[in-house]
Amino acid sequence: MQTTAAFYTGDRTFSIEQVDSPQPGPGEVQIDVAYCGICGTDLHVYQGHMDARVGSHRVIGHEMSGTVAEIGVGVAGFAPGDPVVVRPLDHCGTCPACKRGHQHICQNLKFLGLDTDGAFQQKWTVPVHTLHHLPEGLKLAHAALIEPLAVACHDVGRGKVQDGEDVLVIGGGPIGMLIAMVARHAGGVVTISEINEHRIAFAQGLGFATINPAQADAAKTVKKATGGKGADVVFEVSGSQPGVELMTDAAATRARIVMVAIHATAPKVDLFQFFWREIEMLGARVYQPADYEEAMKLLSGGAIDADAMITDVKGLDQVGDAFAELAGNPRAMKTLINCNGEA
Amino acid sequence: MQTTAAFYTGDRTFSIEQVDSPQPGPGEVQIDVAYCGICGTDLHVYQGHMDARVGSHRVIGHEMSGTVAEIGVGVAGFAPGDPVVVRPLDHCGTCPACKRGHQHICQNLKFLGLDTDGAFQQKWTVPVHTLHHLPEGLKLAHAALIEPLAVACHDVGRGKVQDGEDVLVIGGGPIGMLIAMVARHAGGVVTISEINEHRIAFAQGLGFATINPAQADAAKTVKKATGGKGADVVFEVSGSQPGVELMTDAAATRARIVMVAIHATAPKVDLFQFFWREIEMLGARVYQPADYEEAMKLLSGGAIDADAMITDVKGLDQVGDAFAELAGNPRAMKTLINCNGEA
Ligand SMILES: [Zn+2]
Ligand SMILES: [Zn+2]
Ligand SMILES: [Zn+2]
Ligand SMILES: [Zn+2]
Repeated sequence: MQTTAAFYTGDRTFSIEQVDSPQPGPGEVQIDVAYCGICGTDLHVYQGHMDARVGSHRVIGHEMSGTVAEIGVGVAGFAPGDPVVVRPLDHCGTCPACKRGHQHICQNLKFLGLDTDGAFQQKWTVPVHTLHHLPEGLKLAHAALIEPLAVACHDVGRGKVQDGEDVLVIGGGPIGMLIAMVARHAGGVVTISEINEHRIAFAQGLGFATINPAQADAAKTVKKATGGKGADVVFEVSGSQPGVELMTDAAATRARIVMVAIHATAPKVDLFQFFWREIEMLGARVYQPADYEEAMKLLSGGAIDADAMITDVKGLDQVGDAFAELAGNPRAMKTLINCNGEA
Repeated sequence: MQTTAAFYTGDRTFSIEQVDSPQPGPGEVQIDVAYCGICGTDLHVYQGHMDARVGSHRVIGHEMSGTVAEIGVGVAGFAPGDPVVVRPLDHCGTCPACKRGHQHICQNLKFLGLDTDGAFQQKWTVPVHTLHHLPEGLKLAHAALIEPLAVACHDVGRGKVQDGEDVLVIGGGPIGMLIAMVARHAGGVVTISEINEHRIAFAQGLGFATINPAQADAAKTVKKATGGKGADVVFEVSGSQPGVELMTDAAATRARIVMVAIHATAPKVDLFQFFWREIEMLGARVYQPADYEEAMKLLSGGAIDADAMITDVKGLDQVGDAFAELAGNPRAMKTLINCNGEA
């Protein structure tokens, strides 16, 4: 059977092709993809930063929702028609990290949609262990937010945000915004630091306090707002040197800093402040199964404003346009590709 | 009554002076100082790095033991003749850190022996809340190790070293060596990374595995020795850029890095590794009362080889010589000043 797939072919280009969709193999499930969001990582691929990893003929995309189309031999617990999402991690099971229960940061981790073909296509076949059932009544468009929301749940879990704690989120892109929402739901008093005026307005529209560090001393503002204490939990999502400076400057004694951003080059870090105020830093990468369950619970329960987050929906044949717009448009939050229907 | 005190007077100089020892005030205790060790911080003072903080007429020293000489009005629980040590921290009680129970990292913390006069003198008067009773049978010379040992107990506690875990200590000076001993006592399998051959020999004499990063790829050595896993707990005690690189390179997934060193300038830190392997970093500064109790228990129980650590004892009138030797001599571990007797 021939279906449509969007291949990243290098140099900011996608090629829409007809492909064979073979039967799912043993332990595999084939999914009719409904929606797939465009992630910051996908934008990195688009801009050519990850060609060495993804090559020049790769279906990317991993922030998806869909329904089971067919199941392979030995698959239990899933049946055609079941609404599902994929946790796009394939671990080795034998490395020291896997053996210690850290499968999500397996030393040989394969990320579906980067190291294998992903979800910007009509039919996607994945190992059954990556699937989660969707709760009843959750819209498939909203469900496409589960993957990035699970990132945010993992991050907030790593930071152990408690009721009433002062939280600073450095960087108000899609992940920063979701972290802010999850942290607020956990009882945190959240401030977002962001320099993009559109994103500041977006954050304020969701009721968050904001600081523009280009216009004010962000650390002083946080200290003042917290009676000289500083933020109890800081999420560094900016990936920038000023963000790294702010994360220590704004932190309370024994604050937890969650390192969410991917710092491709090593920034200067004020380690003296770690010593002086016994600050803690916790790296956070992707998610564990419980984070997916938590993300679904939050979405189902209305704790997350999914409609506000989804700023655009486009068809699979428009994937190139969607990436081009997103790469140049700092107003958008999350663009979804509707892979089997109209935009 | 006139007693002898050694004043740091700037520019690598001490002045031995006769001073009045007034009666202890309300809530204060006067101590006959027995021994006082020379700390790395004291060496910093000696080298002129802390003149802005200590001034040019300051009795320094805080790694002490002694016996109660006199008690002030309202002092309960201590009597003349009691063997004691001082936990040289005076907190404000009202700042956000104090209010949250982090008195040891009080935002207005005074360190006795830096911000006030210290223990390189015959009689030292301190607030009673800083005192700990010594356990019976503990030698006063050994008790002078309690303060640095409490640092090590605090550091190992922050790193939550568990039985069987692989531990890397970066920097084999006195604090690094004490951390190694405490971590081994907690069940850790300890390797010390150090470039000074005398200290390497000292560590090997105590039965520790060692790596000289000037001669071998330290991270590779750790990875190889741990089946590709890396160290579960890393103590960064070197205060150096190469040490900061090793701390992330040698760390396992979800490793804890304890930031013990004082990094006066911000080094480059490989934050990508924090993200990628969900590494945690915990700042650790001084100690809490329980760390003093733990240090005394370890010393009393023979878990720490105090005699090996104490490489020299000198009289109070030789304090200048003692500092000069230590500043130029990388063979010494810990030099004690015998403040009321012969060396
Ligand atoms: Zn994503
Ligand atoms: Zn693995
Ligand atoms: Zn000390
Ligand atoms: Zn205080």
